[in-house]
Amino acid sequence: MSMATEQKFMELMKQQAAYVEAIGLMAWDMRTKAPRKSAEGRSEVLGVLSQKVHDIQTSKEMRQCIEELKGNVQDPVVKRAVEEAEETYDKNAKIPTEEYRAYVTLQTKAESVWAEAKENNDFEQFRPYLEELVEYNRRFADYWGYEDHRYDALLNNYEPGVTVKVLDEVFPKVREALTQLLIKIKTSSFKPDPSVLEGHFPKENQAKFSEVILKRMGYDFEAGRLDETIHPFAIGLNIKDVRVTTKYDETDFRTAVFGTIHEGGHALYEQNIDPKLALTPLADGTSMGIHESQSLFWENFVARSEGFWKNHYELFKSYAPENFQTLPLEKFYPAVNEVKPSLIRIEADELTYCLHIMVRYELEKSLIDGEVEVKDLPVLWNQKMEDYLGVRPDKDSDGVLQDIHWSGGDFGYFPSYALGYMYASQFHAKMQEEIDVSQCIEEGNFNKIKEWLTENVHQYGKMKKPLEILKDVTGEELNPEFLIEYLTRKYKQIYHF
Amino acid sequence: MSMATEQKFMELMKQQAAYVEAIGLMAWDMRTKAPRKSAEGRSEVLGVLSQKVHDIQTSKEMRQCIEELKGNVQDPVVKRAVEEAEETYDKNAKIPTEEYRAYVTLQTKAESVWAEAKENNDFEQFRPYLEELVEYNRRFADYWGYEDHRYDALLNNYEPGVTVKVLDEVFPKVREALTQLLIKIKTSSFKPDPSVLEGHFPKENQAKFSEVILKRMGYDFEAGRLDETIHPFAIGLNIKDVRVTTKYDETDFRTAVFGTIHEGGHALYEQNIDPKLALTPLADGTSMGIHESQSLFWENFVARSEGFWKNHYELFKSYAPENFQTLPLEKFYPAVNEVKPSLIRIEADELTYCLHIMVRYELEKSLIDGEVEVKDLPVLWNQKMEDYLGVRPDKDSDGVLQDIHWSGGDFGYFPSYALGYMYASQFHAKMQEEIDVSQCIEEGNFNKIKEWLTENVHQYGKMKKPLEILKDVTGEELNPEFLIEYLTRKYKQIYHF
Repeated sequence: MSMATEQKFMELMKQQAAYVEAIGLMAWDMRTKAPRKSAEGRSEVLGVLSQKVHDIQTSKEMRQCIEELKGNVQDPVVKRAVEEAEETYDKNAKIPTEEYRAYVTLQTKAESVWAEAKENNDFEQFRPYLEELVEYNRRFADYWGYEDHRYDALLNNYEPGVTVKVLDEVFPKVREALTQLLIKIKTSSFKPDPSVLEGHFPKENQAKFSEVILKRMGYDFEAGRLDETIHPFAIGLNIKDVRVTTKYDETDFRTAVFGTIHEGGHALYEQNIDPKLALTPLADGTSMGIHESQSLFWENFVARSEGFWKNHYELFKSYAPENFQTLPLEKFYPAVNEVKPSLIRIEADELTYCLHIMVRYELEKSLIDGEVEVKDLPVLWNQKMEDYLGVRPDKDSDGVLQDIHWSGGDFGYFPSYALGYMYASQFHAKMQEEIDVSQCIEEGNFNKIKEWLTENVHQYGKMKKPLEILKDVTGEELNPEFLIEYLTRKYKQIYHF
Repeated sequence: MSMATEQKFMELMKQQAAYVEAIGLMAWDMRTKAPRKSAEGRSEVLGVLSQKVHDIQTSKEMRQCIEELKGNVQDPVVKRAVEEAEETYDKNAKIPTEEYRAYVTLQTKAESVWAEAKENNDFEQFRPYLEELVEYNRRFADYWGYEDHRYDALLNNYEPGVTVKVLDEVFPKVREALTQLLIKIKTSSFKPDPSVLEGHFPKENQAKFSEVILKRMGYDFEAGRLDETIHPFAIGLNIKDVRVTTKYDETDFRTAVFGTIHEGGHALYEQNIDPKLALTPLADGTSMGIHESQSLFWENFVARSEGFWKNHYELFKSYAPENFQTLPLEKFYPAVNEVKPSLIRIEADELTYCLHIMVRYELEKSLIDGEVEVKDLPVLWNQKMEDYLGVRPDKDSDGVLQDIHWSGGDFGYFPSYALGYMYASQFHAKMQEEIDVSQCIEEGNFNKIKEWLTENVHQYGKMKKPLEILKDVTGEELNPEFLIEYLTRKYKQIYHF
C-alpha cells in the first residue's frame, strides 16, 4: 500500500520536474537564442506549464500522498522530498486561490510599470503598484504565520531558518565593520588606478579566457555550455545540463571574466548534486544564500585573490590587448580590487556590496512589519545610502527604483546576497583548516577546492537546510566575524593601512 | 452549455500546444545546442511530456468535448480542430493501450538496433525487429480500417486522401518517364563537370550567403533563426518561432546552400500560417507531402534554376573561394544540376530522387499488404535499384538498411516525398498562369512567389486537407504530367537531347 503511494508520489515529482525542466529551457532560450517575436506565444505556453506545476503541487493526489507518506518512509530521499512537497503544499494552500491569481496578474503588470517608472525616473508611477505588492506580501506572511516578525515568513521563502532575530544580530556588526573599513580605505593615501584596465578587449578573447578558467574550476562543458546574454545567469535544467551565460563589455573585461566565474560557481553547485536526487525538487540549491556562497567563493575568494592572478596573469595577458602587456601585476591586482562606493548594487565592489544589502534589508523589514510606508521609501533610501556608503542618489532611478526584485514581489530575497558572503567566508575559513587554499589557488589546483565544496555542500542539494549545512561543515552558527576578518585582511594589504 | 464545452475544448488544445511546443524546443535544443551528457535526463522528461500529449488526446474529457461539439460548432477553426481531435482520438482509441506501449518500446529498441546493423552492414541483426514492426503496422492498419488496401490505412497518417489506387495510377507514369529521361541523359554526349565546384569553402561564408537568400525568400529572422546541426531540419515551435538548421560541408557548398533553402521553404510555410490557428493542432503543415512541396519549390524550382543563378552568381562569388572567380556560369549551372544515379536517397539529384521513392513505395506496400516478407527485402531492393536506377548496392548498408524510417515504424511516409515533387510542379504550373515566375526569379523578386504560396497554401495550415488544397489551387486532381514536363524541359536544355 505504502509502496504504491510512494511510487505515485515519485511519479508526481517526476512530472513536476519535467515541467520545471521545460520551463527552464524556455527561460534559457528566451534569454539567449529565441527570436524576438517568439515572446508572445512563448509566454502563453509558459503560463500553461507554470499552472501545471502549481496544479501538481496543490492537487488532492499530492495531499493524499503527503498524508500517507509523512513519517512512514524509510528512504531518506523520499522522506525529504515529502517534507519539501508538504512545505510547498502548505504554502500554496494557505493562500486563497482567487487572491493568488490576482497577485500573479499584479506581478506581471507591476514589473512592466516598474521598468517604465525606472526609465522615466518616476517613483510616483510605480508607487501604487508597490503599495499593493507590499499589502499582498503582508497578508501572505500572515497566512503563512511567524513567531516574532511578519518579515520572518518572507525570509523563510529564500533562507529557511534565518529570521529577523538572527539578521539583526549579525548585520549591524557587518555594517559597522564595513563602514569603518571604508573610512580607512577612503583616507588611505594609496589609490588603485583602474584606468590601467581600460582598452578595447575583443569579446572572443574574453570568452576564451573565461572558458579556460571555467574548465580549470571543473565546470563540465559536456554537461553545460556558455552563452551570451544581457542579464547573466546560470540555470540547471538537469544535473547533466547546467548552463552559464555571461555579458561582454569590450571596454571592461571585469564584467565578463568575474561574471562568468561567478555564474560558474553557481553552475558547479548544480552539476555536482548527487544524481540520486534527479527528477525530484531536491536536485537544486538548498537556498539562495548557499547558492550565492558558491558563486562568491569562486568570484571573490578565488578569482579576485592575489594568488589567482600570480598564477593566471600571464595566461590572461595572452588574450588581453596591448595595454596589459606592459602592466605589472602590482598595478593590475589593486586595480581589479578597487573599492569605490557607488549608487548601483550590481556594480558594487566586494566590500561595499553588503552595505547595499543592509539598506535594502532594513527598508523592506520595516516595510513588511508596517513601520514604514511605501511613500517614505525614496527619502529613507537616500538617507541610508548617505549614512552607510557616503553617496546619495540624485534620482530615484539610481536609488529606490534600481532593482527589479520588489516589482516581482520578491521581499525577503536581498538578505540572501549578504548571507552568501558570510557563508562563503565561513566555508573558506574551514576549508583552510583542511587544505592549503592559498596554495591551491596559486598553483591553479582548483580541483581540490571543488572537491571540498562538492563533498561538503554541492552533493546534498536540498537534502539539508542551509543552516544545517553551515553547522555540519563549520561546526558553528552564522558568524559574521569570518567575513569581517577576511575583508579586513584583504583590504589592509591592498590599501596599506 | 455548448459555449462552455467549446472553451473547455480550446483549453485542452492550448495545453496540448504547450506540451508540443516544449517538446519541440527540447528536440531543437538536443539537435543543436544541448550538452552531450544532458541526453539521458532529457529523454526521461520528453517521455513525461509525450505521455501528457497522449493523455490529453485520449482523455474522457476530450471524448466528451468531441461528442458535444461535433456538428454543433459555428466557428470554422473550432470545427476543424474538433474534426482533427476526433481523428486523433479514434486513431489512438482503436489501438489497445498495452499493445501501443509495447510498440513504443519496440520502436526505441529497433532504432538503436537498426543504427548498429547499418554500421555492421548486417541485415540479419535488424530483421527480427523489422518483422515485428511490420506485424504491428499490419495490425494497426486493420484496427484503423481501409477500403481497398491495408497500406492505405498507413498512407492516411501522412497524406490523408492519397491511396494505393491513386499512387498506382501516377507513380508508374513518373517512373516510366524518369527512367526514359535517365537513358537520354546517360547517352548524351554532354557531361557536366562537377569537379569545377570543388575547393575549400569556409562555412562562415556559406552561412552568410545562405542567410542572404533566406532573407530574400522572406524568411523572418525575427521569428526564427539559423543554426548548425548534423541532420538538418526546420521546426515550428510557434508561428512566430520557426527555426532552420543546416549542415556545412566545406568541400561541397551544395549541402548547406541547397539544404538551407530547402529547410527555409518548410519554415516559410509555418511562419505564414494564419495566426488565428495558433495554439491549436491546425497551426501546422497539412501533410508531409504539401510540406515537402514547399521546401522543394524553393530548392528546385527556384534555387536550382538557371534564372536564380543568373541573378545570384555574382553575389555567390563574393562569398566563394578562388576557383569560382573564373568559373563561368555556363559551367557552374550544369554542374549544380548534374544527374547521377547513386545508391543513397538523401544524396540523390532532383531527377533520380523520385526513383528512390518508387523502390521504397513498391516494397513497403507489398510488405504491409503481405505479398512480400521482410527476409526477401534485400534481394528485392537491389533488383529494383538496378531496374530503375541502373546501380546495384554491394552492401545492405547502402541498400535496404540506409533509411531510418522503417526502424521507427514509419511505413507510408516515403510516398510523401514524391508527392511533394508532384504538388510543387502543379503549384508551379498554376503560379506561371498568374505571375511570371521565371521573371520573378531572374529579378530576385521572391516576395511575389512567397505571397502566392502564402495566399494559396501557407495560410491554411491544417484547415484544408492536402488534396483539397491541390484542387482549390490548381483546379485539378493529382497529375504527374506537370512534374514529367518540368523535368523533361529542364534536363533537355541542360543535357542537349
